[in-house]
Amino acid sequence: MLRGAGVSPGVGVGPVRGIAGAVPEPPAGDRHGGDAAAERATALAALEAVATDLEERGARAAEIGNTDGRDVLNAQALMARDPGLADDVGTRIDGGTGAARAVFEAFGVYRDMLAGAGEYMAARVTDLDDIRDRAVARLLGLPVPGVPESDEPFVLVARDLAPADTAVLDPAQVVAFVTEEGGPTSHTAIIARTMGVPAVVALPGATALADGTRVLVDGSAGTVRPDPSETEVTAARSAAAARASALEGSTGPGATKDGHRVPLLANIGGPTDVDAALLNGAEGVGLYRTEFLFLDRATPPSDAEQEDAYRKVLEAFPEGRVVVRTLDAGADKPLAFLPPPGEEPNPALGERGLRMMRRHPDVQAAQLAALARAATGLTVKLQVMAPMVTDADEAAFFAAACREAGIDHPGVMIEVPAAALRARDLAPEVEFFSLGTNDLTQYACAADRQVGGLAHLQDPWQPAVLDLVAPAASAGIPCGVCGEAASDPALACVLVGLGVTSLSMSAPSLPLVRAALARHTLDECRKAASAARAARTAGQARDAARAHLPGLTELGV
Amino acid sequence: MLRGAGVSPGVGVGPVRGIAGAVPEPPAGDRHGGDAAAERATALAALEAVATDLEERGARAAEIGNTDGRDVLNAQALMARDPGLADDVGTRIDGGTGAARAVFEAFGVYRDMLAGAGEYMAARVTDLDDIRDRAVARLLGLPVPGVPESDEPFVLVARDLAPADTAVLDPAQVVAFVTEEGGPTSHTAIIARTMGVPAVVALPGATALADGTRVLVDGSAGTVRPDPSETEVTAARSAAAARASALEGSTGPGATKDGHRVPLLANIGGPTDVDAALLNGAEGVGLYRTEFLFLDRATPPSDAEQEDAYRKVLEAFPEGRVVVRTLDAGADKPLAFLPPPGEEPNPALGERGLRMMRRHPDVQAAQLAALARAATGLTVKLQVMAPMVTDADEAAFFAAACREAGIDHPGVMIEVPAAALRARDLAPEVEFFSLGTNDLTQYACAADRQVGGLAHLQDPWQPAVLDLVAPAASAGIPCGVCGEAASDPALACVLVGLGVTSLSMSAPSLPLVRAALARHTLDECRKAASAARAARTAGQARDAARAHLPGLTELGV
Repeated sequence: MLRGAGVSPGVGVGPVRGIAGAVPEPPAGDRHGGDAAAERATALAALEAVATDLEERGARAAEIGNTDGRDVLNAQALMARDPGLADDVGTRIDGGTGAARAVFEAFGVYRDMLAGAGEYMAARVTDLDDIRDRAVARLLGLPVPGVPESDEPFVLVARDLAPADTAVLDPAQVVAFVTEEGGPTSHTAIIARTMGVPAVVALPGATALADGTRVLVDGSAGTVRPDPSETEVTAARSAAAARASALEGSTGPGATKDGHRVPLLANIGGPTDVDAALLNGAEGVGLYRTEFLFLDRATPPSDAEQEDAYRKVLEAFPEGRVVVRTLDAGADKPLAFLPPPGEEPNPALGERGLRMMRRHPDVQAAQLAALARAATGLTVKLQVMAPMVTDADEAAFFAAACREAGIDHPGVMIEVPAAALRARDLAPEVEFFSLGTNDLTQYACAADRQVGGLAHLQDPWQPAVLDLVAPAASAGIPCGVCGEAASDPALACVLVGLGVTSLSMSAPSLPLVRAALARHTLDECRKAASAARAARTAGQARDAARAHLPGLTELGV
Repeated sequence: MLRGAGVSPGVGVGPVRGIAGAVPEPPAGDRHGGDAAAERATALAALEAVATDLEERGARAAEIGNTDGRDVLNAQALMARDPGLADDVGTRIDGGTGAARAVFEAFGVYRDMLAGAGEYMAARVTDLDDIRDRAVARLLGLPVPGVPESDEPFVLVARDLAPADTAVLDPAQVVAFVTEEGGPTSHTAIIARTMGVPAVVALPGATALADGTRVLVDGSAGTVRPDPSETEVTAARSAAAARASALEGSTGPGATKDGHRVPLLANIGGPTDVDAALLNGAEGVGLYRTEFLFLDRATPPSDAEQEDAYRKVLEAFPEGRVVVRTLDAGADKPLAFLPPPGEEPNPALGERGLRMMRRHPDVQAAQLAALARAATGLTVKLQVMAPMVTDADEAAFFAAACREAGIDHPGVMIEVPAAALRARDLAPEVEFFSLGTNDLTQYACAADRQVGGLAHLQDPWQPAVLDLVAPAASAGIPCGVCGEAASDPALACVLVGLGVTSLSMSAPSLPLVRAALARHTLDECRKAASAARAARTAGQARDAARAHLPGLTELGV
């Protein structure tokens, strides 16, 4: 049994198909025959062919309804046609370097810049490598990497998946994803959840699985079993079926078995996510990430544009609440008009979120004012919170800015360990907390969310993380959770047992969490929480909590 | 009054002298006249002249006893003569680019790689920029940046100081350092403490101070006052004199006024630091960093070489203890023979310390065996601890490896918040803890030690940090502190009040801490600790603690 991180639930069985092998690095010092002009033409033709192919894949993706995939592929095509890149390739060829090597080296310069430019840009390195490999493969006459052809449904195995691989996938042909790299927020994980396909990531040795090997992938448990017996397949499938049937009856407001109300909310990135939230019965929005309005543009969005985007979401929940997180800018999501003030060797520990907004109070004031205007005349309860708050002074600064703008319900994210530990000092300054368990775990365990080898430390079941949730959840003001932890049905019960007052998650996770809460009393949740905190490791905490949560079994989790 | 971070104690008064202005970037697209061969010769001659000049400065540094400075300058000279760099410059000139621009761009490629390669390499970006600026200045006919000539002693003000600036400084001519960038572990801070010159770093707007302005620099308080009155100068100097005289009487083992023993130990990087430790009355070594044995080499040091380096330190403290920290390798201090397993967008949150050793148990086993052999037949108490331990399983793994190697006293660093919070789970596995307050603060406040703009969050007086010290110091096993916090006389008293059993620091800080402890009872220390933890901010915690530590005033701190 191989163990990785389950990032999209469900069970899939099928033969392994690997992504076509890696494209080798053209040897350093490779020289062309002397005709630089012809070599340049060859190199540019290869880049253009890659761009055209990516656009065609984009068009096919759009045909199967994947317009986001099309946009990513078109952006990659633009990169392949970048004039600066072409110039760099040309200069290297003029200096005698062969076309494939020149392309490889020119991409290398961009690659180093991206890799050093923080989380958001570093995540694009995979996209860039994919373009490079496609161009180099063409120039060397090698097969272009990508999803294999297959006559039967298969389990797709790769080191990591590129947008060009996944955008044209037929969900009917792929029964599961398994990758060596990646985490819960990787491209693979997001695509898998969007497609409703089970997925296990961060599985060491995944690419060593031989093509054709039959495997049983359990995206809930995070396991991959090669050559499973029919008994194992049947057991896994019936657990999945039990869960599916339990979910059909999961509707209405969130509450424990004994009627303790726990509003269940959705995490969204903009108005386009509202439909999925409503479909899954969200009682509102617990985390509206506003970065997408600001990314990839040279100037901030206009006041009117902001107001419009906010109002579309606020109007969708006339009887609920919407919690908006102000711009989480910073070196990990660099904005052209808010450059980081200096070198940031560790962007996750740099001038992010509120730290950046304190340098640019005008940007924050404009966003708060747009939010206040957007809510005018609506019945929804608008709550606004700041990211990356560390101490009481920062909380007071943000609350003052909110009141100045006419926002009545200011709050703060609790994602820095210091803020959790001193929650009692922050509580008098604001109306509510929202725990960001992903970053809180990252900092508490000093383990990068993006590094696959540290997945065992990036586990919100770590008793130390629960020790940080507890003071925030008992500081005397409402305290929600909007991190991935809220979407784990067992952990959701534990969080409620610790005193958390609402849970917010990606919309598809809502029914299972609603069902898990409905099967347990508040007292069972509290006992599960105590047992988890008394444990010594993350795994022991999970087991100890489950012993107090008998209703999870009938949900197949 | 300007406020920055005081990183080297003492008071200095004098006129400001700035480092000669920045060298401008040669304009992009700058082309030479057409004679590429001549242009190449010009560029290479400039690089060679820079290398020669750096070597001459190295020789002068060695003459005034600064052999470390010479080594750094010779390493820079090697970089200036790097054949790969020369090839890159040549290729760009062949493509038509002018010499100055070609040099600038070629360095840029290296720069991006270094900047993206983790803390240790990123710190060398300053060295690289310095070489580039010297070469570009020569090619453009501009003054070469560097320390100004002066007839009278002066306060040296800069954005940051390069090794080439500081290595040839005459301590008699420089009364203080003030820089805009840098932190307690920056090159400027280390040089200042070595030279015994007061220094304030991370001071916003430092370079805006006009040349010739008389300033009063207080390296203990971290303040710079332009145009001070004679009264202010006299007050600052008499406080410094009071402290100096109090220190003369500071000898013997560390203890509180009422005789509660607190061994005072030194942080060292190798056998060459032993003399300073003994001179300042260290009762042993509380942190022996072993990285320097491993850095900058293609293979691990031999068993005999390790044993020799360890034995030299162990022999120096026949009646004391020596706490050795095993190799803290990882992406922030990359080792050629232990490459990081993948991209690390945030090296400080990556596979560092014990995490890396778990991938390479052979390297750890060899180090532990060399330590055991080095201690054979000696009376010193050898304690060995692992860095970056997160949970009880990791502590147990390390203790088992120690016992296997014949090391009787295993311990762990407490620098990850999760380890501090769950200290009671780790305590049964090992014999002692050592708190690394620098990293603990960095992670607790999610604030990079290397980012000047976050210095207010990188403050060990943050009450949240004290909340993390408390559980580690009361987990039932000895718990020392080996971070910068131990060298702050007030905070040292607070740490003892929290239950810390020994303090380890850079050797020059020992006398002042010894004097501060000797002036307060354990009960005063405990009251100071309680008051600090009850405070709301770092500044309030410092003030609240000092109110219980009246003896600090006579020490002038």
